[in-house]
Amino acid sequence: MPESTPQPGGVPSGDAPSGGELPREVLSGEELAALDAHWRAANYLSVGQIYLMGNPLLREPLKPEHIKPRLLGHWGTSPGLNLVHTHLNRVIRRHGTDALCVWGPGHGGPAVLANSWLEGSYSETYPDVSRDEAGMARLFRQFSFPGGVPSHVAPETPGSIHEGGELGYSLAHAYGAAFDNPDLLVACVIGDGEAETGPLAASWHSGSFLDPVHDGAVLPVLHLNGYKIANPTVLARLPEAELDELLRGYGYDPLHVSGDDPTLVHQAMASAMDTAVTRIRHIQRTARTGAAPGGSSAPGGTGARPRWPVIVLRTPKGWTGPAEVDGVPVEGTWRSHQVPLPGVREDPAHRRQLEEWLRSYRPEELFDEHGAPRDRVLACVPDGERRLGSTRHANGGLLVRELPLPPLERFAVAVERRGATRHEPTRVLGDLLRAVMSATADRRDFRLVGPDETASNRLQAVYGASGKAWQERVLPVDEHLDRHGRVMEILSEHTCQGWLEGYLLTGRHGLFSCYEAFVHIVDSMVNQHIKWLKTARALPWRAPVASLNYLLTSHVWRQDHNGFSHQDPGFVDHVLNKSPEVVRVYLPPDANTLLSVADHVLRSRDYVNVVVAGKQPCFDWLSLDEARAHCARGAGVWEWAGTEDGTREPDVVLACAGDVPTQEVLAAAALLRRHLPELAVRVVNVVDMTRLMPREEHPHGMPDREYDALFTRDRPVVFAYHGYPWLVHRLAYRRAGHPHLHVRGYKEMGTTTTPFDMVVRNDLDRYRLVMDVIDRVPGLAPRAVAVRQAMADVRTRHHAWIREHGTDLPEVADWTWEG
Amino acid sequence: MPESTPQPGGVPSGDAPSGGELPREVLSGEELAALDAHWRAANYLSVGQIYLMGNPLLREPLKPEHIKPRLLGHWGTSPGLNLVHTHLNRVIRRHGTDALCVWGPGHGGPAVLANSWLEGSYSETYPDVSRDEAGMARLFRQFSFPGGVPSHVAPETPGSIHEGGELGYSLAHAYGAAFDNPDLLVACVIGDGEAETGPLAASWHSGSFLDPVHDGAVLPVLHLNGYKIANPTVLARLPEAELDELLRGYGYDPLHVSGDDPTLVHQAMASAMDTAVTRIRHIQRTARTGAAPGGSSAPGGTGARPRWPVIVLRTPKGWTGPAEVDGVPVEGTWRSHQVPLPGVREDPAHRRQLEEWLRSYRPEELFDEHGAPRDRVLACVPDGERRLGSTRHANGGLLVRELPLPPLERFAVAVERRGATRHEPTRVLGDLLRAVMSATADRRDFRLVGPDETASNRLQAVYGASGKAWQERVLPVDEHLDRHGRVMEILSEHTCQGWLEGYLLTGRHGLFSCYEAFVHIVDSMVNQHIKWLKTARALPWRAPVASLNYLLTSHVWRQDHNGFSHQDPGFVDHVLNKSPEVVRVYLPPDANTLLSVADHVLRSRDYVNVVVAGKQPCFDWLSLDEARAHCARGAGVWEWAGTEDGTREPDVVLACAGDVPTQEVLAAAALLRRHLPELAVRVVNVVDMTRLMPREEHPHGMPDREYDALFTRDRPVVFAYHGYPWLVHRLAYRRAGHPHLHVRGYKEMGTTTTPFDMVVRNDLDRYRLVMDVIDRVPGLAPRAVAVRQAMADVRTRHHAWIREHGTDLPEVADWTWEG
Repeated sequence: MPESTPQPGGVPSGDAPSGGELPREVLSGEELAALDAHWRAANYLSVGQIYLMGNPLLREPLKPEHIKPRLLGHWGTSPGLNLVHTHLNRVIRRHGTDALCVWGPGHGGPAVLANSWLEGSYSETYPDVSRDEAGMARLFRQFSFPGGVPSHVAPETPGSIHEGGELGYSLAHAYGAAFDNPDLLVACVIGDGEAETGPLAASWHSGSFLDPVHDGAVLPVLHLNGYKIANPTVLARLPEAELDELLRGYGYDPLHVSGDDPTLVHQAMASAMDTAVTRIRHIQRTARTGAAPGGSSAPGGTGARPRWPVIVLRTPKGWTGPAEVDGVPVEGTWRSHQVPLPGVREDPAHRRQLEEWLRSYRPEELFDEHGAPRDRVLACVPDGERRLGSTRHANGGLLVRELPLPPLERFAVAVERRGATRHEPTRVLGDLLRAVMSATADRRDFRLVGPDETASNRLQAVYGASGKAWQERVLPVDEHLDRHGRVMEILSEHTCQGWLEGYLLTGRHGLFSCYEAFVHIVDSMVNQHIKWLKTARALPWRAPVASLNYLLTSHVWRQDHNGFSHQDPGFVDHVLNKSPEVVRVYLPPDANTLLSVADHVLRSRDYVNVVVAGKQPCFDWLSLDEARAHCARGAGVWEWAGTEDGTREPDVVLACAGDVPTQEVLAAAALLRRHLPELAVRVVNVVDMTRLMPREEHPHGMPDREYDALFTRDRPVVFAYHGYPWLVHRLAYRRAGHPHLHVRGYKEMGTTTTPFDMVVRNDLDRYRLVMDVIDRVPGLAPRAVAVRQAMADVRTRHHAWIREHGTDLPEVADWTWEG
Repeated sequence: MPESTPQPGGVPSGDAPSGGELPREVLSGEELAALDAHWRAANYLSVGQIYLMGNPLLREPLKPEHIKPRLLGHWGTSPGLNLVHTHLNRVIRRHGTDALCVWGPGHGGPAVLANSWLEGSYSETYPDVSRDEAGMARLFRQFSFPGGVPSHVAPETPGSIHEGGELGYSLAHAYGAAFDNPDLLVACVIGDGEAETGPLAASWHSGSFLDPVHDGAVLPVLHLNGYKIANPTVLARLPEAELDELLRGYGYDPLHVSGDDPTLVHQAMASAMDTAVTRIRHIQRTARTGAAPGGSSAPGGTGARPRWPVIVLRTPKGWTGPAEVDGVPVEGTWRSHQVPLPGVREDPAHRRQLEEWLRSYRPEELFDEHGAPRDRVLACVPDGERRLGSTRHANGGLLVRELPLPPLERFAVAVERRGATRHEPTRVLGDLLRAVMSATADRRDFRLVGPDETASNRLQAVYGASGKAWQERVLPVDEHLDRHGRVMEILSEHTCQGWLEGYLLTGRHGLFSCYEAFVHIVDSMVNQHIKWLKTARALPWRAPVASLNYLLTSHVWRQDHNGFSHQDPGFVDHVLNKSPEVVRVYLPPDANTLLSVADHVLRSRDYVNVVVAGKQPCFDWLSLDEARAHCARGAGVWEWAGTEDGTREPDVVLACAGDVPTQEVLAAAALLRRHLPELAVRVVNVVDMTRLMPREEHPHGMPDREYDALFTRDRPVVFAYHGYPWLVHRLAYRRAGHPHLHVRGYKEMGTTTTPFDMVVRNDLDRYRLVMDVIDRVPGLAPRAVAVRQAMADVRTRHHAWIREHGTDLPEVADWTWEG
């Protein structure tokens, strides 16, 4: 064990914001005994879940048949989580606080489940797991058992908004939950393994964005138990003074609790918790009465950000578990990470050791003859929705309200003649977002997040209704910084994503705008969120939450400034690998379709919506009414762009998805009409990519009949797609017409160059598309050979021109649609 | 501008490891003038690249035709980078140091190119860009111009190992370059925007892993210019004391330099650089002479990690650029991020302002009548390979040596009878890696990285040849920690990936072992590395480097402890979207094939190799010789597993890729042989996934003839694939037999359950595969209906059994292949 005496930190309780020393004995003997009983009960139940499938109260000596055949789960972190839960119970009761806890070391599922069962939340959510001996048996058996509950904290866990399987996101989730929840205390246990991850490290700086007036408080508890799976942790091995500096450097005021003597640790932890809550209240009171920094809303205010408390809890890994197993140390080492006694079913000595371990918690003192927790055990437990397993904040769908979306007519661009005007679609969307921001000014349940790109993505109209959240110094030259802002900008996609997930899962709304290429930074996070939603949707007690909406812009085709490193349209491919009931992908081709799609996704629930749209001037193709109808269908024929006259089947289908491909397809259609007027050309635009999938594979998938009516069963289809071309094949391979499908898209031919050169390099340009058509339609007039050559000639001319002039050919730069 | 006077930091020069005050005037008048001239020249050249396509020396007043038609690039960070480069030149010369610099704010491409041209490295690499007026004109014109060079630091940039487009990885790259390069100083400029990212934040802790004996030094220069694209940066706005605490908490000893008066900043910067280099030498000398902490190789040593210096450089963004443009402040604000004067081609006032700006550097003092830099400008420039643009360490292919790989026979498992024995493939690989570690003990050019999972992934044999790198406290209970270890474990996939990239690009070898699901954490990093390799391969002066090799294990089918959150096989899909000449994907089905694949990838150059292999006991199917032959083909018929007798065509092909799918397919083949012996079954195993692709799309792609010979053109193919099933369709959709291809794989039906239940949930189990065959082969005997029902019955039985017992059906658990 790393330490043997508690070392209360260096600051006083009371209203003083910082400095001094923690009081050592804040608990009476009875209080201490009750807290310890609760902790022991939780520890007992944690061990029981990992090992037992019978004899939960040890009414008889343990036999092999009481032991699960497969021992799965994580003990090491559980006693620490149980300690934190016990003491959170105490301060919630004592201070009358609404609280939520994010369990970073969520692999300690047994601990959180144990506490939820103790406080009754679990049995209220799952009545078959009652708070008695039968329920305890069920609680034990179901854990990590086929058909039972996962080994981690998960959507199935009452009170949770955070799956603990992938480490790094707890603190960002906690801040997301705290934003615009002024009366909520969000505790967040951070494992010392998790603390090594990049996303966690970045999220410490979230305090620079937390408004003490309108936001709640986050209380991080950095739990140093010293070891990961197989290694010591960096933070636990730093010299203590250095760790203290690190946390102060992150902007916090650390309270240190450490030891392995439960009595002393209980006193120190109670004292640290009281001090933390008192300081938080002091900061909030000061800010909210306008008496101090943070209370002023003047953007030029120079008030300092408050220093929020953080608790550093240093206790042994696997504390109270077997000190040694088979002659090697286990408690206080990495060996206690999962299942400290592996052989209990087969090995009587191990089984005896397990039984001693379980009995060391004195279960007879903790549970009555029916298996229910005794009163003393429950003395610290808060009431009703104050219980961590019962807070509505962890079931955000119960709290979410309809977002007040204004009529789109106010923002739509007028389309008198198709393609006659151009707008920057995201700028048009910015006006809509500004209105949403305005409409939620009092409710404060909408946030826009992005990595320093809101203006770059041309959404800056939103600043007219809310500035950018910022608690650090403000200089006179700064613009739009706002201590109470709801636009969130930090150059960390991870933090943006984590904040937004926490905000949504606690019942609010939001949008994440991101450069298309760099959203891959959060690939793994969105995986976890999709998995969360998939699981949550199947739980009747979880109410639907607002969707996680991405606006991906500054996309692959327009990286004029940045080139190859900023070109990657593969996020769509990534999310489409995931559960089809959760994921939606939209590629609106112009400003009005973007408005319609945005309106749709902002109203939706329980989805991850990916919207890809450009920020550069883009031709306006559809009126708002047409856009709505087109988006409702998700894919449709643009009769006006082809040669449709209702009398004949097309010779070829030109399909497109995405703003730049749509422009190229329309230009190609115009070229074909001019040069090969006898050719029957159909133009199909796809907004909702999942419509291409079979009905059986995605709820939006078109029936074959509809697909065939759109794309034909036997005519060549030349499809210009925004991203990697094979994605379209992967979606459409079961369709009858698939053998005739030819897809163009981005194929990693990227660099810093002009917009048109980008499409030429990737064979997505209008001239290439015309050539593709000529190559595929049988029986064309002999003239087609010359037309094809003319197209190839323009491409050759392009290459020479661009190297000479650095700009696009005038006929391309000045091109407009002639309807 | 944020500051107006320089504030030299709080520590002395000389050998003292820390504390005291920086000397204020270390430069003589002439030295200062020469450094300033170099800096001005670099600034002039940076501005020239952004704006000019003619008149590079301003021999006549600027006219519109001298200005590029599209103004692209980033000015804001450039003067700061130029300052750092100038002063690095000085210390390299003065201290006779081998150095490399990683430019985190790599969007400042103009700065790095300017310095490279000044020192002559650029013209030596690209002789057409000579160090004279014509070359300067070319340097300017080519920048961010179609057919020219990218706007960021990139593979095309001499001296670079780091593409600056995606922020966050500079410091990890720098540490990777420093490992096992004891005489190298790796400077690393970190932008204050970049410093907000998670990966960067985590990588500060790399000092806990840097061995002062065998590794070189990293000198981070945190460049606070105050703003990102549109926002202030968090670190620049922290109270200075808090930032100092943060860096101390990260384990460094900060040296502060700030100001906007060039003379004062030059003095302060020279002093800080001298102090930093002196301290680094002191730390290294002490460690290497065994006189102090870090010098002891005893794993139990308690020596403290040294505190390495970091320079905090605070200068205005866009320093020396236009103070105001059109009445708003630009220098010292975010407005100088890209192109401070946007309208110079059209607007004479802007053009005049640009000319004044360029002339403010007094180009006539800097360049002679031929346009070559004058002697004074070059006074600080080091010689030959000491120049940052000419160091061989930045062109690692020049340094890389053949990895000494031992004969595989020493590690191969004996296969007397197929499927009669089982081995954990990664454990077998661990023995090979141990031998590689041993063979490189003196050369020190091989490292194994992983996020705390080396032992979990069963590679721990490697500890027999090298412990785990660790510079923090060591406790008696710890195992395998080693101050000089080359196994790297930190719970940050980002840091692991960054370290390895830096290590490989400087000419060494390595392997990244990772849980399959969590490698998505580095999706975006691997994107950038693949893009780097693609570009580098096309540059004749860049020599090939060792491949980046992933071992993905603890895979989707065996997440017994962790369940759904740990299940994602999509990394393969992600990399297969990238440049086919760079990416390779292998799924060895047993221990010997894993050995053969590992041997191959460790010898390869300039690839990203993804190897997916299990750590759980797996049947041994192939002898080493067979494995080699099979891996060389990449895909082949396993005659012994099917009913091949050379006389008849198969009725059905059972294909498989991956260890678990292979087992299920072999079990299905055995069931078919028993129950439908008249059916001609072919078993095909695929190791190299890219063989399925068309020849035109991937260099490993099979010709159609070969594909057809393997899979037939018209027989049903039931393909059991390790990952998402549609990937196989996406690879094979052009093949003649594609309409008959039916793929099973992972479809997000995940949870904590038994191994066999996982395959049942995803319809990949042997019984389902047999049913698939029966459903697809026409004209089967009527008995097939009963066989199909029997298979369905086992699946039903499975569901009941598992809920009751929590284990797999005995007939599955005890199954072995009967050859």
